[in-house]
Amino acid sequence: MARPYNFSAGPAAMPVEVLEIAAREMLDWHGTGMGVMEMSHRGKAFGEIAAQAEADLRELLAVPSHFKILFMQGGGLAENAIVPMNLSRGGVVDFVVTGGWSQNSLKEAGRYAQTHLAASNADSRHTTLPAPASWQLSPDAQYVHICSNETIHGVEFQALPDLKALGSDAPLVVDFSSHVASRPVDWSRVGLAFGGAQKNLGPAGLTLVVVREDLLGHALPICPSAFNYKTVADNASMYNTPPTYAIYIAGLTFQWLKRQGGVAAMEARNIAKARLLYDFLDQSPFYENRVAPDCRSRMNVPFFLKDESRNEAFLAGAQARGLLQLKGHKSVGGMRASLYNAIPIEGVQALVDYLRDFEKEMA
Amino acid sequence: MARPYNFSAGPAAMPVEVLEIAAREMLDWHGTGMGVMEMSHRGKAFGEIAAQAEADLRELLAVPSHFKILFMQGGGLAENAIVPMNLSRGGVVDFVVTGGWSQNSLKEAGRYAQTHLAASNADSRHTTLPAPASWQLSPDAQYVHICSNETIHGVEFQALPDLKALGSDAPLVVDFSSHVASRPVDWSRVGLAFGGAQKNLGPAGLTLVVVREDLLGHALPICPSAFNYKTVADNASMYNTPPTYAIYIAGLTFQWLKRQGGVAAMEARNIAKARLLYDFLDQSPFYENRVAPDCRSRMNVPFFLKDESRNEAFLAGAQARGLLQLKGHKSVGGMRASLYNAIPIEGVQALVDYLRDFEKEMA
Repeated sequence: MARPYNFSAGPAAMPVEVLEIAAREMLDWHGTGMGVMEMSHRGKAFGEIAAQAEADLRELLAVPSHFKILFMQGGGLAENAIVPMNLSRGGVVDFVVTGGWSQNSLKEAGRYAQTHLAASNADSRHTTLPAPASWQLSPDAQYVHICSNETIHGVEFQALPDLKALGSDAPLVVDFSSHVASRPVDWSRVGLAFGGAQKNLGPAGLTLVVVREDLLGHALPICPSAFNYKTVADNASMYNTPPTYAIYIAGLTFQWLKRQGGVAAMEARNIAKARLLYDFLDQSPFYENRVAPDCRSRMNVPFFLKDESRNEAFLAGAQARGLLQLKGHKSVGGMRASLYNAIPIEGVQALVDYLRDFEKEMA
Repeated sequence: MARPYNFSAGPAAMPVEVLEIAAREMLDWHGTGMGVMEMSHRGKAFGEIAAQAEADLRELLAVPSHFKILFMQGGGLAENAIVPMNLSRGGVVDFVVTGGWSQNSLKEAGRYAQTHLAASNADSRHTTLPAPASWQLSPDAQYVHICSNETIHGVEFQALPDLKALGSDAPLVVDFSSHVASRPVDWSRVGLAFGGAQKNLGPAGLTLVVVREDLLGHALPICPSAFNYKTVADNASMYNTPPTYAIYIAGLTFQWLKRQGGVAAMEARNIAKARLLYDFLDQSPFYENRVAPDCRSRMNVPFFLKDESRNEAFLAGAQARGLLQLKGHKSVGGMRASLYNAIPIEGVQALVDYLRDFEKEMA
């Protein structure tokens, strides 16, 4: 049987080529006589792996030289605390709440800063995006936080807000966990971006932080050294032992992305993949997606069977067809298909074929 | 050529069988059609992997049922902050400083608690251990911190201190990163033990915490949710996405340890391995180990060539013989051989053979 398509929201499908290389190199990386897991993070071999991963990521995402790339631990959830510990200076921080993740970020930041809700889409149950012109930004905010793609609710910013144009000098903090490397980033609008690796980059346990250099050096005294961005940056992400194997796998993924044509090429594919699925859902009387068309996520597509009594049959049939991990998040229900970079359009076509067949079968 | 022996202090040598299984299962774990890296942490398959890993570890280390086992992120260095955020209640904490790691722990805890130096071996340059009877314990300490094996300085407690017998009711906090699973743990003397996985358990990026249940629930308000032990425990280590692949590899290592006869069998082998190396070093006029015999680490053996001008030739010759990563820590210099569980006695014998040959060659 062909390899199943895995629509998990994360940890998620990896490129097959990456897994094949990792399996082949497991006991001996490039003739060193060591697997990557066995290498000292201070040694020459791992130093090469980490430097290459960082350089490839900088190229792929076109990260300007005045931004530092940090490889950390703790995931997006830990960053909800680590960002305000590093950037808030205990002052006011603005949050734009657009779904489960930004809601969590707001709550956690309250331990370290005075949080201000600048805008919210709670009225629409997180199915729209509040227009930036309507945001109530604080004049003295230390930063403005958004989640540029809400994994649970399937809402995505199609462009990052231009805070300067909105009259704010605050840096923009972006949680881009679940769509990093799926589309280009306009760094001129960003102060800091962070993301867990386990969607589009690599294994869970690696966290990516990209931070403008001028924002370093203002951590609160209670910020743990291991999570002080300046300390991490000054030590090239090796102040504490980094998650070495996860960095290696992410590096293999970066090389795979380059072979695919880079982020612009991935974006074109991701647009085509998302369109294929949304177009099918929209024309069907059997399924529905509840997110407003202009802010639908290309990466995470929550959808519902209008007759939810058929959910279990749907999932069992999908599993039998080799379409895995389609169950929706518990806070939203229904189904969710995550179409990260590692999902080829053939996988989306297989899903659409199944959606059509299941609909007919139930008619 | 035979596989080299890798004496890295961590990340460190892994059992070959573990790497072979991991390579074989990389694209498909047990017929699920997914590699472990690709599994949702909330799914059935990964749930089984995590539960088995925890059960095996509990059996191997004989962890009593009133202790929780937590799989976290951040490494020992992050725990230096996370422990006092969870256990200090902002009060007094006692530290016994016996090397680089406990020194770091003391420094970091000062952000959250009133630290008290109860004992130190700094006078001997970390080559002895202060007798517990001489420790100046605080009457009101929230806990007493020790590092039971100092990776850098090669000093190991051969028994955990009995704080009750010393007149203290404070829980003992043990950093056992670099000798966990190399010998049994007397849990009756422990309140909390933590360790990075990357020495004896698995890949870097996974942190093990074993904590007595009655110590949960007292975190400082500034403790990030992701690092609040109670939150982590209440969610079976899945409050934030855990480092799933690292947990899987650690689980394979636990199964390997069970096949080897468990921790008691490993201890017998580790005693034999350490004796082989220390006995050779002690009889040689060419090398020296500077640690007092009664507190020498079985896991980490720092040693010096008496003529340090030969260090580079020594390391180059070792590399040529397939004896890897023997360079000492920068703060101590010289050499260091780490003899973790994955190093067989044949590896130690190969090292001793090389030590002898190099000494003869230089004579």
